[in-house]
Amino acid sequence: MSHAELSADARQALLAQTIELPSWAFGNSGTRFKVFAQEGVPRDPFEKIADAAQVNRYTATAPRVSLHIPWDLTDDYAALSAHAKDLGVEIGAINSNLFQDDDYMLGSLTHPDPIVRKKAVDHHLQCVDVMRATGSTDLKLWLPDGLNYPGQDNLRARQDRLAEGLAEIYAALDPEHRLVIEYKFFEPAFYSMDIPDWGTALLHCLALGPQAVVVLDTGHHAPGTNIEFIVAQLLRQGRLGAFDFNSRFYADDDLMVGAADPFQLFRIMHEIVSAGALAPDSGVSFMLDQCHNIEPKIPAQIRSVMNVQEATAKALLVDTAALDAAQQSGDVLGANGALMDAYNTDVRPLLAGLREEQGLHPDPLAAYAASGYAEKIVAERVGGAQAGWGA
Amino acid sequence: MSHAELSADARQALLAQTIELPSWAFGNSGTRFKVFAQEGVPRDPFEKIADAAQVNRYTATAPRVSLHIPWDLTDDYAALSAHAKDLGVEIGAINSNLFQDDDYMLGSLTHPDPIVRKKAVDHHLQCVDVMRATGSTDLKLWLPDGLNYPGQDNLRARQDRLAEGLAEIYAALDPEHRLVIEYKFFEPAFYSMDIPDWGTALLHCLALGPQAVVVLDTGHHAPGTNIEFIVAQLLRQGRLGAFDFNSRFYADDDLMVGAADPFQLFRIMHEIVSAGALAPDSGVSFMLDQCHNIEPKIPAQIRSVMNVQEATAKALLVDTAALDAAQQSGDVLGANGALMDAYNTDVRPLLAGLREEQGLHPDPLAAYAASGYAEKIVAERVGGAQAGWGA
Amino acid sequence: MSHAELSADARQALLAQTIELPSWAFGNSGTRFKVFAQEGVPRDPFEKIADAAQVNRYTATAPRVSLHIPWDLTDDYAALSAHAKDLGVEIGAINSNLFQDDDYMLGSLTHPDPIVRKKAVDHHLQCVDVMRATGSTDLKLWLPDGLNYPGQDNLRARQDRLAEGLAEIYAALDPEHRLVIEYKFFEPAFYSMDIPDWGTALLHCLALGPQAVVVLDTGHHAPGTNIEFIVAQLLRQGRLGAFDFNSRFYADDDLMVGAADPFQLFRIMHEIVSAGALAPDSGVSFMLDQCHNIEPKIPAQIRSVMNVQEATAKALLVDTAALDAAQQSGDVLGANGALMDAYNTDVRPLLAGLREEQGLHPDPLAAYAASGYAEKIVAERVGGAQAGWGA
Amino acid sequence: MSHAELSADARQALLAQTIELPSWAFGNSGTRFKVFAQEGVPRDPFEKIADAAQVNRYTATAPRVSLHIPWDLTDDYAALSAHAKDLGVEIGAINSNLFQDDDYMLGSLTHPDPIVRKKAVDHHLQCVDVMRATGSTDLKLWLPDGLNYPGQDNLRARQDRLAEGLAEIYAALDPEHRLVIEYKFFEPAFYSMDIPDWGTALLHCLALGPQAVVVLDTGHHAPGTNIEFIVAQLLRQGRLGAFDFNSRFYADDDLMVGAADPFQLFRIMHEIVSAGALAPDSGVSFMLDQCHNIEPKIPAQIRSVMNVQEATAKALLVDTAALDAAQQSGDVLGANGALMDAYNTDVRPLLAGLREEQGLHPDPLAAYAASGYAEKIVAERVGGAQAGWGA
Repeated sequence: MSHAELSADARQALLAQTIELPSWAFGNSGTRFKVFAQEGVPRDPFEKIADAAQVNRYTATAPRVSLHIPWDLTDDYAALSAHAKDLGVEIGAINSNLFQDDDYMLGSLTHPDPIVRKKAVDHHLQCVDVMRATGSTDLKLWLPDGLNYPGQDNLRARQDRLAEGLAEIYAALDPEHRLVIEYKFFEPAFYSMDIPDWGTALLHCLALGPQAVVVLDTGHHAPGTNIEFIVAQLLRQGRLGAFDFNSRFYADDDLMVGAADPFQLFRIMHEIVSAGALAPDSGVSFMLDQCHNIEPKIPAQIRSVMNVQEATAKALLVDTAALDAAQQSGDVLGANGALMDAYNTDVRPLLAGLREEQGLHPDPLAAYAASGYAEKIVAERVGGAQAGWGA
Repeated sequence: MSHAELSADARQALLAQTIELPSWAFGNSGTRFKVFAQEGVPRDPFEKIADAAQVNRYTATAPRVSLHIPWDLTDDYAALSAHAKDLGVEIGAINSNLFQDDDYMLGSLTHPDPIVRKKAVDHHLQCVDVMRATGSTDLKLWLPDGLNYPGQDNLRARQDRLAEGLAEIYAALDPEHRLVIEYKFFEPAFYSMDIPDWGTALLHCLALGPQAVVVLDTGHHAPGTNIEFIVAQLLRQGRLGAFDFNSRFYADDDLMVGAADPFQLFRIMHEIVSAGALAPDSGVSFMLDQCHNIEPKIPAQIRSVMNVQEATAKALLVDTAALDAAQQSGDVLGANGALMDAYNTDVRPLLAGLREEQGLHPDPLAAYAASGYAEKIVAERVGGAQAGWGA
Repeated sequence: MSHAELSADARQALLAQTIELPSWAFGNSGTRFKVFAQEGVPRDPFEKIADAAQVNRYTATAPRVSLHIPWDLTDDYAALSAHAKDLGVEIGAINSNLFQDDDYMLGSLTHPDPIVRKKAVDHHLQCVDVMRATGSTDLKLWLPDGLNYPGQDNLRARQDRLAEGLAEIYAALDPEHRLVIEYKFFEPAFYSMDIPDWGTALLHCLALGPQAVVVLDTGHHAPGTNIEFIVAQLLRQGRLGAFDFNSRFYADDDLMVGAADPFQLFRIMHEIVSAGALAPDSGVSFMLDQCHNIEPKIPAQIRSVMNVQEATAKALLVDTAALDAAQQSGDVLGANGALMDAYNTDVRPLLAGLREEQGLHPDPLAAYAASGYAEKIVAERVGGAQAGWGA
Repeated sequence: MSHAELSADARQALLAQTIELPSWAFGNSGTRFKVFAQEGVPRDPFEKIADAAQVNRYTATAPRVSLHIPWDLTDDYAALSAHAKDLGVEIGAINSNLFQDDDYMLGSLTHPDPIVRKKAVDHHLQCVDVMRATGSTDLKLWLPDGLNYPGQDNLRARQDRLAEGLAEIYAALDPEHRLVIEYKFFEPAFYSMDIPDWGTALLHCLALGPQAVVVLDTGHHAPGTNIEFIVAQLLRQGRLGAFDFNSRFYADDDLMVGAADPFQLFRIMHEIVSAGALAPDSGVSFMLDQCHNIEPKIPAQIRSVMNVQEATAKALLVDTAALDAAQQSGDVLGANGALMDAYNTDVRPLLAGLREEQGLHPDPLAAYAASGYAEKIVAERVGGAQAGWGA
């Protein structure tokens, strides 16, 4: 197809695109049934960052690593930051943890007991300290609070408690900080989550102020939910702060982004591109949040970055003029066809070419496989406790 | 169980409860496959109101009838109102219709063509005139607009057009009027609805002003959605304007309210009662919106009113002190048990007793069946065109 | 990508592939809310077949047209067959209708009343006569029977009645006939369908005998259902008789196949190709069953045929040896990558080339648009009653 | 309501009803995010059985305990059985475990490697030995095998391997043994389970022979699935072997049975009662399979047993003659009303009375709470490793 050539602007947009990696994707993960350990898995945040840097090395698109507190607690964040910088990456968002302390069994920021709520707020103050120590600007809060049984607690009272706790956290932010709030349909709570949907997340952000934005995890919706509509709506409100990319067939499966429904990923990126929200200064942070339960973690992250790049390249190939004209004239098939034309294009040669221009191997997965890194970490990382969600 | 006795306040609340009936529930309805006609179905709004009045006659709880324009257009609204009053009921909300005009195939308020959008706005101005003629205070707008195919139109542009059209409609309201906006997950659009969820409906209401509120149709959500959470959230925002009650197993099945999941209906009413939103002056209008495709329509409406009454009575029976105490102390089973205790109570004797005190037959369905009304309308309503969705 | 070249066998398979068109896709269709009429729509089965022949003219892949009885009843099937032959197509499956007779409001083959059941059986005997008159070999039965309310009828008794009725129909088949039984998750029944899933359809087929097979409509499943698994399972049992292709985001949306989830369509075709079930003599009939509510019908059918061809071409491009090797060695990413490699290939140039070799225009949609046929039928088909579901 | 009196037969049926408890419900459980430990949790199978016996002590309805191998492995099954007998209960079904051995990461009975498959078969032979040692007659097999990614393995080949493995296991059964096969929609596999639905489970049972039956876990279905239809269908085929009772709002939430949708549980029990499948000799084993993540385990099991009893009592109260008559005459509202009449009855007084006649406390939860057992196990069970899913 003739349009498999990018405009100069589109080329530039692709080269400028960045995707943030989660440190925890390099540790072991699994289901409630079993966590299968993989050889060579990192034992500490330094090793996680080293692995993440491999992804960036072969894609030049993943220059930041999100940390998760307390999983990535360390005595010396300056050393961790320097370590990252040495490897060509830097620290990204700081993620808080409200689901693994015994006190949080019945809630954290929404708990009936003010002592537990204070503890949850204080944890975020600690995270703000980590932000200051690492230069991170995003505090990411996913609220696992919720109820398993009808009547277990008061739905409205929990919203009020939540608003109060969020306000205390928000007040602790520096001017350049953002509070990035994530919603989730269900799990770990099985009757009602306290932030189950984008509407609830947005209402809390609106109440807090301009530094509060919503993070959209692509796996956190009810079956059939039109995610690109939410993207468009949050962009229209100026409150789409970030993506947690992954993919799912059923629930929050946390598979590699683009693996379950590559067309959906394309549609999401089409909304992003249409709204001019692809640029690094758009305020939208593109992050991965995935669990590689059965596949090797570093190549799975590489593959995920490539999947996002391919969806983005396709979105950039959309013939906007043709699309708009068909939409304006009510040409349903023509408008749909204009979108599908871009989606059906094979952008892999184009992306391989771009990589070569940057001095990269055209095939990041092959380059990584040939590097010997996988064998090296298996050989070297013997002993110690492998990182994982429960670390 | 000893607590199957209502407090004086609860008794009063039950007696004061009203449920609004939809005129269209008395006409024929069906699926895209077939509309099965029923004998005795009304041929005009006067006959619909007569049927609705039967429901009120045996329940004393359904004193208002929603109209749908243009299905219920008439030359003489004064006569229609007087007819209603004669039968002991009055005109309720005025519902607009944006889905049956050929011009609306690709949208109404969100259509790319400003001429079509103006037509859709003008239709609402006509509805406001009907409100003035009937004394109705609620203009109910369900937006069927949406897309069947990705790319068919611009998701964000449609939100902008919608906001513009709603603002024009809002500007036409009298001070005592409300604009009641309904959302729907899908159907008739199969890729993206323009108001698919409560978050979108609420954002438009917030942009419009205090006279705009959300109507929650219990059948308009994704599978698994926790509806009582949305009720709590909208009440907390002061923007729950009304319910369209019905029930569903799958999509927007429009079955009798309480038929598919009576426990859910109870949980919804529990949120209402907890928030003090049951009273007629609470601003929440309780309406039915159902399709009786295969069952006789008048008894189906009676049954539906009874189902709401039973769920309400159970919600009023909740031992609030015990529930709060269990919630505060983290007693999961105790708190759930306090709620279930009320749900598991058989409130039918209690409601039968209340009816007798009001001079009603304790069993509204039996009383209606014995009245001969069903046979009468079959005999009398011969000839003419039966009312239906397409009327 | 180097493998965007088909083997000779794959080329042959693509050329031999046929997709059957539904006569009713050329008539008007819609939702329960509204059927938007389109200009130029056929008024009788002869005109429907003429339109269907247009699809075949530009794709050379759609040589059969399914009829629906009674919508396509005619006095002279010989004339209808000859008409089809003149236009280069022939009559395909005969579809019965169990949902539009007033007697069927509460069921047809499962109705409590034996007189209604007999009527439903007799209708199929009439359909068998049409098969004999048209040379059709497939009797397609979609059972719309079911319940809207718990308790409405006896679930088990309905299965017994169904088995009895199916046996009578089966007994009337000629040796070369097949009974093709379709299942559906919900709609038009909203509590329980009498054949809701593939398991139920298959059990009835097994009880009937080898001439009974299952038809899989891609829109007739619960959210999240893995359809290619069902394809694999039915093929393994030797009972996959046909597809009703379409696509959906929510329920039975009946959108163009491949429009909602092109990756799913590819996975389905991969199962077909893997099992050697693509060949015309495999016993699997590939049919479309779609509703073009808002888009023009003939180009929508052309587009649908092209979508199936593209998915098929991609499935034929899978590097089976690489896939098998990765699967055997437990290389999760490699195996998934082998599949995605084929999916991500742009097969449109390849298919355009094949068309040119056949003497067709490389772009069927453009060729149809240039033909003037659309304008011609709008001009000619004035007066008369347009065909539609309710015809 | 006058019919809140049971017939003598119904009384007898309720007294004869038994519900089997899972040993693992008394250990710690949780989500992939966190397992919250509870004080007093058993450390070994002997303590689990002691806890289970408490449930039976206050309900007289839970006389059997399912074991899970290897979680409940012991050197001396004679001692375990004697221990159970001393406490008034006995060993029930033996559950195998195919999800926690490192070799099973990519499958067990369906694994591409025959060595892994043999290991999985051998594990079941070990389980058969446990059956012989304990007198258990049911071998329960839940297959967690499946794929996370399209292409990861060959869907059909896995069915063939599964059939082969099941045949070897089946061949090892004694004549009085049953192989009880469970299906699950998703989790732990996130693309395709190898036994995802009742159809697949049943096909394997049919291929194996009469000793193979299906177990229906109420949480293992797609959203919206009509479970009572499956119950009716499996009963009709004579292959409903057992229930794993629990409840869910979203996925496999494993909440207390009847907690999420008590009306559904009633409808299930109505199918059971209608088919005469309630009796202990019906071949249907009623078991619980739940996770009490945040609520105390023993009272949660008591509550669950009571919920099943209440649903059963309501099902036994259905006025069968009235229901049948309404169904036969097409009286939709009457038939639904007959069912709802039973459901809306408060059966708790009736069940309390039955308990008193048996010499039990009318309120099992209160009796357990007053017994001091909870405090006793917290005090005594200090040290050791608490049992849990990962034990």
